[in-house]
Amino acid sequence: MTDTILTFAELSARVSQIFQNAGLVPQQADAVARTIAAGERDACKSHGIYRIDGCLRTMKAGMVTLDAVPELAPEDGAIVRVAANGGFSNAAFELGAPVLAERAKQLGLAALVINDCTHFAALWPEIEAITGHGLAAMAMCPSYSSVAPSGGHEPLMGTNPFAFGWPREQTDPYVFDFATSVAARGEIELHRRAGTPLPEGWAVDSSGAPTTDAAAALDGAMLPFGGHKGSAIATMIELLAGVMIGDLTSRDALDRLGSFALLPGHGELILAFDPTRFAAGRDGDPMARAETLFEAILGQGARLPSQRRFAARKAAMADGITLSGEEMARLDQLQQHGLDAVE
Amino acid sequence: MTDTILTFAELSARVSQIFQNAGLVPQQADAVARTIAAGERDACKSHGIYRIDGCLRTMKAGMVTLDAVPELAPEDGAIVRVAANGGFSNAAFELGAPVLAERAKQLGLAALVINDCTHFAALWPEIEAITGHGLAAMAMCPSYSSVAPSGGHEPLMGTNPFAFGWPREQTDPYVFDFATSVAARGEIELHRRAGTPLPEGWAVDSSGAPTTDAAAALDGAMLPFGGHKGSAIATMIELLAGVMIGDLTSRDALDRLGSFALLPGHGELILAFDPTRFAAGRDGDPMARAETLFEAILGQGARLPSQRRFAARKAAMADGITLSGEEMARLDQLQQHGLDAVE
Repeated sequence: MTDTILTFAELSARVSQIFQNAGLVPQQADAVARTIAAGERDACKSHGIYRIDGCLRTMKAGMVTLDAVPELAPEDGAIVRVAANGGFSNAAFELGAPVLAERAKQLGLAALVINDCTHFAALWPEIEAITGHGLAAMAMCPSYSSVAPSGGHEPLMGTNPFAFGWPREQTDPYVFDFATSVAARGEIELHRRAGTPLPEGWAVDSSGAPTTDAAAALDGAMLPFGGHKGSAIATMIELLAGVMIGDLTSRDALDRLGSFALLPGHGELILAFDPTRFAAGRDGDPMARAETLFEAILGQGARLPSQRRFAARKAAMADGITLSGEEMARLDQLQQHGLDAVE
Repeated sequence: MTDTILTFAELSARVSQIFQNAGLVPQQADAVARTIAAGERDACKSHGIYRIDGCLRTMKAGMVTLDAVPELAPEDGAIVRVAANGGFSNAAFELGAPVLAERAKQLGLAALVINDCTHFAALWPEIEAITGHGLAAMAMCPSYSSVAPSGGHEPLMGTNPFAFGWPREQTDPYVFDFATSVAARGEIELHRRAGTPLPEGWAVDSSGAPTTDAAAALDGAMLPFGGHKGSAIATMIELLAGVMIGDLTSRDALDRLGSFALLPGHGELILAFDPTRFAAGRDGDPMARAETLFEAILGQGARLPSQRRFAARKAAMADGITLSGEEMARLDQLQQHGLDAVE
């Protein structure tokens, strides 16, 4: 089978149609589809069309409100709150992001809280939406329990992503977005299927002993990155983006789902900072000073995060997004059979 | 020589007198002294009376404005700004903290920016001052260049501490405070003096090759904790708590000082979040839900951060703070000779 080349808009429309055929309202379907198309565009396959199946399974299990309309709460100081009302996070974020940017410019700093959403996306599309307003951004959310705290042996925290972005005037923003676990659960599953040992330091067995056996790791727990420091950050994320915003912790999310095969429901916290406001009255332009820092990193041969993604994007925007014949066939199947295409 | 037992107030007064004899105004001296006494009280010797010498050296080098009076800027949205005016961070923080707490309660979220301060303290005393108002807190600041970015070999970032706290109603707060480097520069210096090899992963030599030789490490650079993830967090701290607030980055701070023997001058960023505001209208009490999370950590034999410090504090508040005869003799010397007691 031959490859097919699609524009970003074509792929977004194609994916949206799949979700709409499966019963999702257009506002939800379009927002999810844009995020999935962005994953493909950036050669970030783990958040590309591969995710469609999981979204459809979660819809089929009744864990997503198919006609959810996100709602913005009345103005409340520096807190912008969007109720996702059981829909996907993406439409809720799209509603809240411009309001967050406006509040951050008014006050210097503001927070977007998304509640009651189903979440499957990386955080970088959201970070980039905020840096696009000339703001710095920090984002975090729980996941579902799969990571033991440092010194423990039972899954408690999720892979809890932590992401940050800084706007740059002449080029792509500075963006990082990483799991606070050493590895992703899916990577351990791949080792189990392949029968290969895990690298040291990824996981413990159910007694808390370090293990390189993938099956024992899946019975046990993954470990946070960076030992007790990463464990502390993962705990902070449970507190700020779970407990504080009145939404599910990773343990709550797993208890609700009962399965790693479905996408977790929880909330999300995104902070936006206005460098112009923070630097007001001080010497030096923060945009120029940040470039000096980035040059000092690049000048010694180190890399800035997300560069591979930005290079892939540039190529995709010029030449289109290439999907294989198999991938296109799967999109056809999903479009035709809707929720019946997944178990 | 025999040990001496002092109350927290007695030790604070004693240390303040040393600084006042050396020419520091009482507001500055008292604030610095309280922080140093808190380090001793919590058995956190690396931030206790050991720090007096470095403070005096930095004063003697003319890098601290001895009669600095911190000033609060006019109200500006969610940003509370204190100009330390060349004094120590401590007095500036004491001025700004209650205003930060008030703004966070008004808006849900606020930021305290401290500019132009000399900084020597751990961040946990500040975090605890904010959690004492029933708020969650996040704090960060640059240091001076000693850490290479992941993949690099030249010192660029500082040991850039990152700290967080969550208030607890019946017990000490949840608090973590750690360097974003694997180790502290002082620890490498101790290995050099002792002629012992460094643990793997602490440092690179000046060519960027991993080294366990302490002298080669001091010529090269320390490494961030957690590989590229810790490196990204250290970079975020340079951006938010250096560039964004219009204050020195770690490289700027080292350029200004020209030495690791003096305390760095820079700024600081502290965020405060009101859980009551963030959780408003949602199910569940955030204080109670956080306890459930802490119990799940402790219940599997893992520890919460700062517990050793809180245990030491409890003992010190009941039985006093014990200083050795040598330590008391050094305090006497410092009190008598002021700036002449240090080089």
